[in-house]
Amino acid sequence: MNKPKILILGAGYGGMISATKLPKYLGKNEATITLVNKHNYHYQSTWLHEPAAGTLPADRARILIKDVIDTNRVEFIQDTVTLINKDENKVVLEKSGEIDYDYLIISLGFESATFGIKGMKENGLAIENLNSVRQIREHIEYQFSCYHCTEKKEDERLNIVVGGGGFTGVEFLGELANRIPELCKEYDIDRKLVRIINVEGSPSILPMFDKELVAYAISRLESKGVEFKFGYLIKECLGNKVIIEKKSTKETEEIMAGTVVWTGGVRGNHIVEDSGFDVVRGRVNVTNQLRVPGYDNIFVIGDCANTPDPNSDRPYPTTAQITIQQALYLSKNMPKVLNGEDYEPFVFNNMGTVASLGHGDAIGIIFGKTKLKGTSAAAMKKIIDDRYLLKLGGIGLVLKKGKLNLLSK
Amino acid sequence: MNKPKILILGAGYGGMISATKLPKYLGKNEATITLVNKHNYHYQSTWLHEPAAGTLPADRARILIKDVIDTNRVEFIQDTVTLINKDENKVVLEKSGEIDYDYLIISLGFESATFGIKGMKENGLAIENLNSVRQIREHIEYQFSCYHCTEKKEDERLNIVVGGGGFTGVEFLGELANRIPELCKEYDIDRKLVRIINVEGSPSILPMFDKELVAYAISRLESKGVEFKFGYLIKECLGNKVIIEKKSTKETEEIMAGTVVWTGGVRGNHIVEDSGFDVVRGRVNVTNQLRVPGYDNIFVIGDCANTPDPNSDRPYPTTAQITIQQALYLSKNMPKVLNGEDYEPFVFNNMGTVASLGHGDAIGIIFGKTKLKGTSAAAMKKIIDDRYLLKLGGIGLVLKKGKLNLLSK
Repeated sequence: MNKPKILILGAGYGGMISATKLPKYLGKNEATITLVNKHNYHYQSTWLHEPAAGTLPADRARILIKDVIDTNRVEFIQDTVTLINKDENKVVLEKSGEIDYDYLIISLGFESATFGIKGMKENGLAIENLNSVRQIREHIEYQFSCYHCTEKKEDERLNIVVGGGGFTGVEFLGELANRIPELCKEYDIDRKLVRIINVEGSPSILPMFDKELVAYAISRLESKGVEFKFGYLIKECLGNKVIIEKKSTKETEEIMAGTVVWTGGVRGNHIVEDSGFDVVRGRVNVTNQLRVPGYDNIFVIGDCANTPDPNSDRPYPTTAQITIQQALYLSKNMPKVLNGEDYEPFVFNNMGTVASLGHGDAIGIIFGKTKLKGTSAAAMKKIIDDRYLLKLGGIGLVLKKGKLNLLSK
Repeated sequence: MNKPKILILGAGYGGMISATKLPKYLGKNEATITLVNKHNYHYQSTWLHEPAAGTLPADRARILIKDVIDTNRVEFIQDTVTLINKDENKVVLEKSGEIDYDYLIISLGFESATFGIKGMKENGLAIENLNSVRQIREHIEYQFSCYHCTEKKEDERLNIVVGGGGFTGVEFLGELANRIPELCKEYDIDRKLVRIINVEGSPSILPMFDKELVAYAISRLESKGVEFKFGYLIKECLGNKVIIEKKSTKETEEIMAGTVVWTGGVRGNHIVEDSGFDVVRGRVNVTNQLRVPGYDNIFVIGDCANTPDPNSDRPYPTTAQITIQQALYLSKNMPKVLNGEDYEPFVFNNMGTVASLGHGDAIGIIFGKTKLKGTSAAAMKKIIDDRYLLKLGGIGLVLKKGKLNLLSK
């Protein structure tokens, strides 16, 4: 009669795959499953660079949770987690109060990390969630709309500084470079007046790709008008400019910019740290069975977990791909967990990585070594995006929210 | 050999009708015609409430000048007028320097007049031109996009105060009331949180309409969520609020609002005043032949003119309708002007007035007394809008930029 209660926190990639797959591995009488999320929707955090630039409607990057989960099997509570009371097996929610669990899956996702850069939190914008990217899109558009309305035209207002040349930063640059000509047309602004400037501390972008692909990405982005400042750190972000420092010489300079978007770092959701878990950058060092050391009934997956890589001293990088695999792994092994049986450690199977450079262009590595660039990589990116939707909600979801033109639209 | 030079300043309703009609009344050898305008486009100033609210793409409210004028007959100069040197028959342009004329048609349009309301010029937005309405649209949308991004939700951010209950104010309120639900959907905001507040000094709106139509307009707008503050003056406009004063009691109160749009007054273009013409609110008291007293070769039409109404002590109100009739009148009589002949005084033929209350709704009076409201008035409004396009650029322009669904789109 006392069915074990499985509680999933967060409806990102990890939470959503868990909520849709657990019912397939567990019978109705074996466990109750509850999903808590602060919004009534799930969004694709790997697509956020598109609505941020305004090249994809924000609504296309989200899915109503109840359209995907089986509400006969999974109870959905729309509420915000404020604390995990791990020693009493309870979670505190903002509106609904306390909720208890027997097994907890923490999949609360990432937050932007500004590493204490002065003013970045206050004056910079982050590609963090659907709310923040809609704000980025509108902030940029508002700057453009103001351009012809001031007594003296302020060209700096049009400049956009993107901090960080990692995955998100580069994908955003690609979309932005495509979007700017449209904005210039809408607001009667000469494209030459608009600068897109990427500031990156290391000597190049996208460390996960080899030199040839990176060179291709840089040249493609430069041809679309992106300027790169490699080897520079952002020291301070003010309302209308950033102060950057050349790492080698410590010389500083200013870049005037009406918009500053920070993509230079992420960390695990602060709730995990606030709840007293041992964390590194907000992430729990989980066991190879994705358990929290000392708390066998608590699992952490996705961006709040440092997952041991058996072939390396360092944990796996946190990506959507690994999160989805973790959720699938955990769902499959949950019957064993409930029975107190042992199960195989988690091993990440790297299917490859594709970074978009804007519509129709991308770079990628698949099957461990096959390099792709240009349209073939862009097509692969869409396949990856749609494959996730297929996994999550079947072909209906792919047709509704997918990126491949499967139906003539 | 020395053909008289006719110079038209401004490509609003008056300038555009003049530039398209003058060549029909004057032979190629009778005069040269030059049109100066600061943009390469003409925009429909009576449509501005729509792009301001975001219910019509801004580009739909404009027409490229060279798509409409006959460039074999009319020389177009894209430049900004800085001064009219009326005693030397010269006009000073920002980039091209001086240009001389034998006959001058001043049709430089209106500007917003804030009557010295403290902070209104700095913190309020005006429905003034295409640049300013794109900024209004984006300002409102930016406020909505910020709502979910602040630590504490600031409901006041969503409030929109519209100052003035005249034609433009009311038409803007109608569009805004239609637009807000769309914005709420896009930004996940409860419609009930958003206030649209009209502040009007007189006891009602739209003084040009009778009580029955005004009551209909108020009730329709209230049903769409517009609040009216009649008998209140805006005393001060700050960044995030307005201070209003009840006229009867002089009591003041504050209304918090993230957006303030001022529609409470207009005046003639400041260039006319700057050039030393005798003006009242930037408008020249022209003769009944639309001439500037003392300057027989200078004509003023549209919003820079106070045109005598033979049946009243007061000049005609400035509207697009009267401006178009003035431009037609002047074009037709220009052969007589060039020959030094006398011609009949200008008489305004009031075809009626229709005020939009948002998509599918309006109030109007046509043929002097027929009252219209609801869909019939809305249809009449579209007919009026399209009739102007027909006059300006023929059926092709109606199909391209018109509002009636003449072709299935």
